Amino acid sequence: MKIVAAKKILKANDQLAEENRAKLDAGGVYGVNIVGSPGAGKTTLLEGLFRGLGDRRRPAVIEGDIAGSIDAERIEKLGVPVVQINTQGACHLDANMIAAAMADFDLGAIDMLFIENVGNLVCTAGFDLGERLRIVVLSVSEGDDKAAKYPSIFQGSHALFVTKTDLMPHTNFDLDRITADFKRLAPDAPIFPVAALAGDGIAEAADWLAKRSDKR
Amino acid sequence: MKIVAAKKILKANDQLAEENRAKLDAGGVYGVNIVGSPGAGKTTLLEGLFRGLGDRRRPAVIEGDIAGSIDAERIEKLGVPVVQINTQGACHLDANMIAAAMADFDLGAIDMLFIENVGNLVCTAGFDLGERLRIVVLSVSEGDDKAAKYPSIFQGSHALFVTKTDLMPHTNFDLDRITADFKRLAPDAPIFPVAALAGDGIAEAADWLAKRSDKR
Repeated sequence: MKIVAAKKILKANDQLAEENRAKLDAGGVYGVNIVGSPGAGKTTLLEGLFRGLGDRRRPAVIEGDIAGSIDAERIEKLGVPVVQINTQGACHLDANMIAAAMADFDLGAIDMLFIENVGNLVCTAGFDLGERLRIVVLSVSEGDDKAAKYPSIFQGSHALFVTKTDLMPHTNFDLDRITADFKRLAPDAPIFPVAALAGDGIAEAADWLAKRSDKR
Repeated sequence: MKIVAAKKILKANDQLAEENRAKLDAGGVYGVNIVGSPGAGKTTLLEGLFRGLGDRRRPAVIEGDIAGSIDAERIEKLGVPVVQINTQGACHLDANMIAAAMADFDLGAIDMLFIENVGNLVCTAGFDLGERLRIVVLSVSEGDDKAAKYPSIFQGSHALFVTKTDLMPHTNFDLDRITADFKRLAPDAPIFPVAALAGDGIAEAADWLAKRSDKR
């Protein structure tokens, strides 16, 4: 019997993720995987964090989307190196896609690689991309019940960014409820409430990120 | 060589979906598949539509979630028959799950079956559940670029409900942009802007739904 298996299958995701991590570490680049629902405000948060980090870091971005390059165009406007991955229907990025995209960066010229995953609170949970940090982004308009309803993605994340806090007065979002649910799933991970467009909370979050990425 | 294949695999999803549809048709029950991101407001929309439909229809609900029964408990409070499906990690409902859940309803006692899918703009696109109508729910807080970024789910849908319109003044959501993008993907499908908590737009949407479900 002849067994044919694609390289992609042989090199299982976790193994590829370890290779990505080793390559980033060797280049002194800190990888951050950003996950959240469609419209949680991941790109706007990135834009805010770049302002907050200022010249403390030289960031680059991998954008994951089903189709198009809307987010990559936003990042490009900031002068930040960016690669767009179109997953052509796949509901999450995987380590193989990241390995391919990483080849397009000069790792010597950057020190943080932000990976904006496909908007999805489910599928993204199972795939290590080779990052050092996974951040979940949840907007207040999505509701405070999301950690209870989608536990996998919150569990094992290193921080929760609660975005669009300027909308809080117009919703019934309860920060105490999401905090309690999240702390059960990720007891040591901090929570940062932010309004990225107005800049509220961004300085604290950027400071934490700068400090955290020093620890590696 | 012995080949073992689960019933689930043999009966491909589309075939099972046709069986569901035939069973619902035979029982005079109109199936509606409601899809959208986590926190788009699917359950709140359902609560609003039940108020809007009044006693014109006898609805029932299947709730699809990764974990828990938060939404099903909300539906139960309205006295509407409801079955909760926990997908245990799966990012969408499939026709097999619906077939199992349908067995719990007395089809003679209902005439509309609303299926609230797992919060996901990607995975839910490929799975016919046996419904007659697929409705996409998109909240204004998610942004007006979602049809461009997640085209599959919008294509082939029969209506777009733009929810949380009361938040519109606090966002940069452009109804013209989402309308143009959606009309390219689903030219004949209507768009209903609603604020389900306040009730804005619900009467029109419920009237359309009542009329549409008469056409079968």
